[in-house]
Amino acid sequence: MVKCQDIIDYIEELAPVELAEEWDNIGLLLGGRQRSVSRILVSLDVTSEVLAFAVNKGVDLIVTHHPVIFGKINRICDDDIKGRQLYTAISNGISVLSAHTNLDYADNGVNEQLAAVLGLSGLVNLGRGPGRLGVLSKRMGLEDFISHIKTKLDVPFVRVVGSVASGIYKVGVFSGSFDNDLVTLLESDVDAIVTGDLKYHTALDARQAGLCLVDAGHFATERVILPYLTAGLTERFPEIEVIHFKQEADPFIAY
Amino acid sequence: MVKCQDIIDYIEELAPVELAEEWDNIGLLLGGRQRSVSRILVSLDVTSEVLAFAVNKGVDLIVTHHPVIFGKINRICDDDIKGRQLYTAISNGISVLSAHTNLDYADNGVNEQLAAVLGLSGLVNLGRGPGRLGVLSKRMGLEDFISHIKTKLDVPFVRVVGSVASGIYKVGVFSGSFDNDLVTLLESDVDAIVTGDLKYHTALDARQAGLCLVDAGHFATERVILPYLTAGLTERFPEIEVIHFKQEADPFIAY
Amino acid sequence: MVKCQDIIDYIEELAPVELAEEWDNIGLLLGGRQRSVSRILVSLDVTSEVLAFAVNKGVDLIVTHHPVIFGKINRICDDDIKGRQLYTAISNGISVLSAHTNLDYADNGVNEQLAAVLGLSGLVNLGRGPGRLGVLSKRMGLEDFISHIKTKLDVPFVRVVGSVASGIYKVGVFSGSFDNDLVTLLESDVDAIVTGDLKYHTALDARQAGLCLVDAGHFATERVILPYLTAGLTERFPEIEVIHFKQEADPFIAY
Amino acid sequence: MVKCQDIIDYIEELAPVELAEEWDNIGLLLGGRQRSVSRILVSLDVTSEVLAFAVNKGVDLIVTHHPVIFGKINRICDDDIKGRQLYTAISNGISVLSAHTNLDYADNGVNEQLAAVLGLSGLVNLGRGPGRLGVLSKRMGLEDFISHIKTKLDVPFVRVVGSVASGIYKVGVFSGSFDNDLVTLLESDVDAIVTGDLKYHTALDARQAGLCLVDAGHFATERVILPYLTAGLTERFPEIEVIHFKQEADPFIAY
Amino acid sequence: MVKCQDIIDYIEELAPVELAEEWDNIGLLLGGRQRSVSRILVSLDVTSEVLAFAVNKGVDLIVTHHPVIFGKINRICDDDIKGRQLYTAISNGISVLSAHTNLDYADNGVNEQLAAVLGLSGLVNLGRGPGRLGVLSKRMGLEDFISHIKTKLDVPFVRVVGSVASGIYKVGVFSGSFDNDLVTLLESDVDAIVTGDLKYHTALDARQAGLCLVDAGHFATERVILPYLTAGLTERFPEIEVIHFKQEADPFIAY
Amino acid sequence: MVKCQDIIDYIEELAPVELAEEWDNIGLLLGGRQRSVSRILVSLDVTSEVLAFAVNKGVDLIVTHHPVIFGKINRICDDDIKGRQLYTAISNGISVLSAHTNLDYADNGVNEQLAAVLGLSGLVNLGRGPGRLGVLSKRMGLEDFISHIKTKLDVPFVRVVGSVASGIYKVGVFSGSFDNDLVTLLESDVDAIVTGDLKYHTALDARQAGLCLVDAGHFATERVILPYLTAGLTERFPEIEVIHFKQEADPFIAY
Repeated sequence: MVKCQDIIDYIEELAPVELAEEWDNIGLLLGGRQRSVSRILVSLDVTSEVLAFAVNKGVDLIVTHHPVIFGKINRICDDDIKGRQLYTAISNGISVLSAHTNLDYADNGVNEQLAAVLGLSGLVNLGRGPGRLGVLSKRMGLEDFISHIKTKLDVPFVRVVGSVASGIYKVGVFSGSFDNDLVTLLESDVDAIVTGDLKYHTALDARQAGLCLVDAGHFATERVILPYLTAGLTERFPEIEVIHFKQEADPFIAY
Repeated sequence: MVKCQDIIDYIEELAPVELAEEWDNIGLLLGGRQRSVSRILVSLDVTSEVLAFAVNKGVDLIVTHHPVIFGKINRICDDDIKGRQLYTAISNGISVLSAHTNLDYADNGVNEQLAAVLGLSGLVNLGRGPGRLGVLSKRMGLEDFISHIKTKLDVPFVRVVGSVASGIYKVGVFSGSFDNDLVTLLESDVDAIVTGDLKYHTALDARQAGLCLVDAGHFATERVILPYLTAGLTERFPEIEVIHFKQEADPFIAY
Repeated sequence: MVKCQDIIDYIEELAPVELAEEWDNIGLLLGGRQRSVSRILVSLDVTSEVLAFAVNKGVDLIVTHHPVIFGKINRICDDDIKGRQLYTAISNGISVLSAHTNLDYADNGVNEQLAAVLGLSGLVNLGRGPGRLGVLSKRMGLEDFISHIKTKLDVPFVRVVGSVASGIYKVGVFSGSFDNDLVTLLESDVDAIVTGDLKYHTALDARQAGLCLVDAGHFATERVILPYLTAGLTERFPEIEVIHFKQEADPFIAY
Repeated sequence: MVKCQDIIDYIEELAPVELAEEWDNIGLLLGGRQRSVSRILVSLDVTSEVLAFAVNKGVDLIVTHHPVIFGKINRICDDDIKGRQLYTAISNGISVLSAHTNLDYADNGVNEQLAAVLGLSGLVNLGRGPGRLGVLSKRMGLEDFISHIKTKLDVPFVRVVGSVASGIYKVGVFSGSFDNDLVTLLESDVDAIVTGDLKYHTALDARQAGLCLVDAGHFATERVILPYLTAGLTERFPEIEVIHFKQEADPFIAY
Repeated sequence: MVKCQDIIDYIEELAPVELAEEWDNIGLLLGGRQRSVSRILVSLDVTSEVLAFAVNKGVDLIVTHHPVIFGKINRICDDDIKGRQLYTAISNGISVLSAHTNLDYADNGVNEQLAAVLGLSGLVNLGRGPGRLGVLSKRMGLEDFISHIKTKLDVPFVRVVGSVASGIYKVGVFSGSFDNDLVTLLESDVDAIVTGDLKYHTALDARQAGLCLVDAGHFATERVILPYLTAGLTERFPEIEVIHFKQEADPFIAY
Repeated sequence: MVKCQDIIDYIEELAPVELAEEWDNIGLLLGGRQRSVSRILVSLDVTSEVLAFAVNKGVDLIVTHHPVIFGKINRICDDDIKGRQLYTAISNGISVLSAHTNLDYADNGVNEQLAAVLGLSGLVNLGRGPGRLGVLSKRMGLEDFISHIKTKLDVPFVRVVGSVASGIYKVGVFSGSFDNDLVTLLESDVDAIVTGDLKYHTALDARQAGLCLVDAGHFATERVILPYLTAGLTERFPEIEVIHFKQEADPFIAY
């Protein structure tokens, strides 16, 4: 019988807890270490849709990238969305285990999966954050590069900041939400960076700094970790069912 | 049908939220405002014994003096006692509503109930805290006063600090845990104070200041509020069952 | 002769300084109050393009929405973009006057201009922030509403979060960057809100709360203030030239 | 001639200053390092009784466990108890030297003396605090254990929390005031812990955690250090008189 | 019999405690309110010389401008100067009462005494601090003004910053240590300010701002309060001896 | 062609940046690292007089001891003195490079230059600050020592605190503003210390501690660094003109 603690141990192998940022909330956030686990759901977030699916399928444990509790709480009431979700999970005996910034930084973690999907090789760290820097198989024009990203990440649109005359070869990836450390990019001598959740002032500074940023969305630059987690869990725990929740959808729809 | 919000409204009448200390955590801490309530349990704390009884009796709502969550949390796991209790309550659809320092300060609240049980009259505030000051029906010697307290509060022992030669007439009450503001007592010209949970250094200072303190226990000086809450809820909501959990026991046993 | 102080006085009429958030940096940020002003440029930001234009045209004063210095500095060197811009402005005798959150909150300010452009009437405050709530001339379906926004704000795309089955009539506007106070929206009983710079987690929460948000961009929801400022300055100071810098471009380009 | 500094040096041998908690106030708190010392009084606290005795006996130096000044002061007036005590000591040329948490942690210090009095052997540290863990000479039932404690510590009563069915062999000691780190106890696999000054909420948590705590009082669990200090000073400084103030009394009297 | 509390009450009439800065330490700092007072010494500071005189003369109470304890303390040992002074005062039964920033701000307080000595009339507040602004009986040249100050304050030298071409008529006084709020001076349209304890950077800024500051010393600009205190105490308490300690000397001697 | 960066590199050799206090603001504070430098002005401060001279002489870079920006700023306007100076420097293409506490601590830095001017040898650190301790060539009486200082530092007066009966041989120097760490001096067994900018309370404490301090002024004890900087720059960069601004004047003039 697989226990929740076994899954925790495995996830900590993939994403060591000491890699997490100090402000983060990771690990087992709901449930119990001694509970048995026979069905796992892997998703980016714990949304109402994810929970409805989990309840319906008899899932014991949801493994997520984003922490199900972020910030501290002193009451749990079903009068608001977050309280309702915690109630649903607890009442249905569903545990939640989250690997967040520890998985962003980890070898083969979120940023390295993003780099792999985009076909980058020769990865090194991108400055002081969890991002990575690598090279494409060949230099591309910006139009081709944008098409490449849209195809590989399966997104209907991207938001591009700045431009690059001489083509793109060295590419940085910073999955999720870019932390605005433009100096990191300038020092890294990168042709373009693929990231998500860019704010206007960051974009304005980047354009003036002559950088080229491609915002493919927080969602699309992070969900690339889900197949990796699903495959790893499946291989390590063949006796339990591991489901990748593919129905998860980006909250942003472009018109 | 009575909703949880109806109970909240009534408790806020008894113990207005603006009376609570800033650091406190009061109100509905578990459950939901729109839930229907047909059976209430009234207790000092949410202990495992209280929860077992509540589950067994089909209780919908526990009304307590001590907050079920104290300090903020960022995970809820059944690997520790507090997590296990939250799990039990949530899984069994039990809401928890707490009135703490707001009930200490309130008219007819914890301190005034303690004063009433001890037969004090002519109540005024005792300094800057929630305590009250009143007078006995007649002056008593210390031995008689101690017997009076033990009888009225039904406690097998009290811990006494200091003494009083001229007998006791003016009595302060400070239910629960005394906050050590001895100056308040000196200014109040009190013969003795009945309180709980005294620490050694407070006792030492009090003895040297010539004060007489009777520590009848945190438990015994606060549980006096439970009959008041039970009776009030029963009268206001005749259609629902209100149970006073009389099996609650002081964790301290003297030998 | 018009002095810089005259322009400051007029801008403070439009956007009283006491409306600004405590963390903001507003007013005359570069230049001098006693300088004469004969040519004003009105823009959203002080970018290198804005400065090049200002130098070329002999502009004395740039009036912006975004503060040219944000956060405090302890050196001014032309080795980085911001330092270079300050050098350019100072060396060319160009003053900069910024009205930021005071203009967001002001009557006829940024949010009210956005509401006006979208044809909203009956404006009231939207919760505790600078946003406004109004009604369209008639209820629209979501598709029509999106077209309406794209046309009125002249934007090639918007990012939509959530949906609304019953059509849109009550519309909130929150120009620039939404501050994530979703409770404000829930309490306001709004059909949709038009805003910019939405982050993923805000969007996810909003979708689950059943809200419909339309992110038309930080740039497009704020530049609506520029014609108002330009017209006001022109009318008040007929003897000086006031130029609306229409070449300013959103740093985000969608593909 | 023995100087105060000689006594300080010896006490620092017994209780190295680097062992003290950061918040503590230890060492020479009143008096002067160059003063000659011919008579020392050893006590737990500096109370009015201790001072009266010291003045009467011509004591030069009081060596205490509890700091005579705790918390910082900005005036010394004899209108309150503490000021009056400082005045008495200073006016009578009495120095005060305190060894507090450094003596709690020290080898042969307060906790080890308590363990020795209770007949514990094989001492190791109890978790992260100054407590110690040892074993009795044989397993005892709870009733016998309680009698053993009352006899050895010469206390008329103890307050017991929780119970233990299988008898007591492994015993933790935490002299003075327990710091509530229950996790330490759970990890230490202890049958019972002897401590003092327990608060109600700590007791409640302990009972639910299945722990057995015996509160023998702050006073009784710390005064065990006084014979050790007295004997050590007497042996090291044979030319001076060292008096153990045995008249000190617990401020709590049980009825 | 005059009690210390009587003197406190009188000093609080002259210098109400609510005028003191929040960081200040004022009032009875050593001694006791119920002590009888038959001889008072009035001085600026409690120095070793002041104490030696007080001990020799049998002084009961020293009334000072500068607090005898400044900053909080957690030990009182005669191994350092301050500890030795506290020991001397306490051992000799000498109380100390200090009126500091409350006396700086008070009507007829330190600044108004300084203004009076310099012959200023028509006093108003100087900006936001305790300083005062008044006018001389006639306009003087700078050289004459400097001679006037040296004569009236009986100082052998002053340090002058800046100059003033058109003569001096409006004069600010800021006794003790100037708090560097130059804007206050610029707004006050003052010809010169008399103050003490100026720092280099303040002087440099003042010179560049075109201000004229005369630093007559912290000592000389504050001791002017002593005759006022002495006379007031003498008049109010004719039955006790009040001594103005005229031997106090400025620690700075110019060569 | 010499670039500003070359000068920065050289100054950092003399005064390594890691020596600076954490609160300090050092290095290139105005200008640009890639700018060419053909004329340098060396001064203690950036005053209006310094700037006027620099503009007149076509100076590219001012090297100062005191930072031109101290404390952080969020606007640069010519309505106040500091803003006007920044405007003048920037508009005239003048860079400013400051070496402050790093130069105080450095080998051959400000304190060592002061010691050299005073003829001290055998230098060691004076306590924990940047000061130095050395010995005169022979023991001097205080009067002679004062004359020596006045001659060597070319100052018309000094302010002396305390006295020294046995003559002066061991001398501490603490250039600029003394940081009041009197314990440092007591531990160093020094006969006298030469410093600047002493405050009254420091002087009073020093006199009571039996110390002898000679305050020769912030200005005079720091300007000794200017010839050293001038000579060093001249030698290292023979192709550029380096001007020592000798017209700088102490803001304090004694009468």
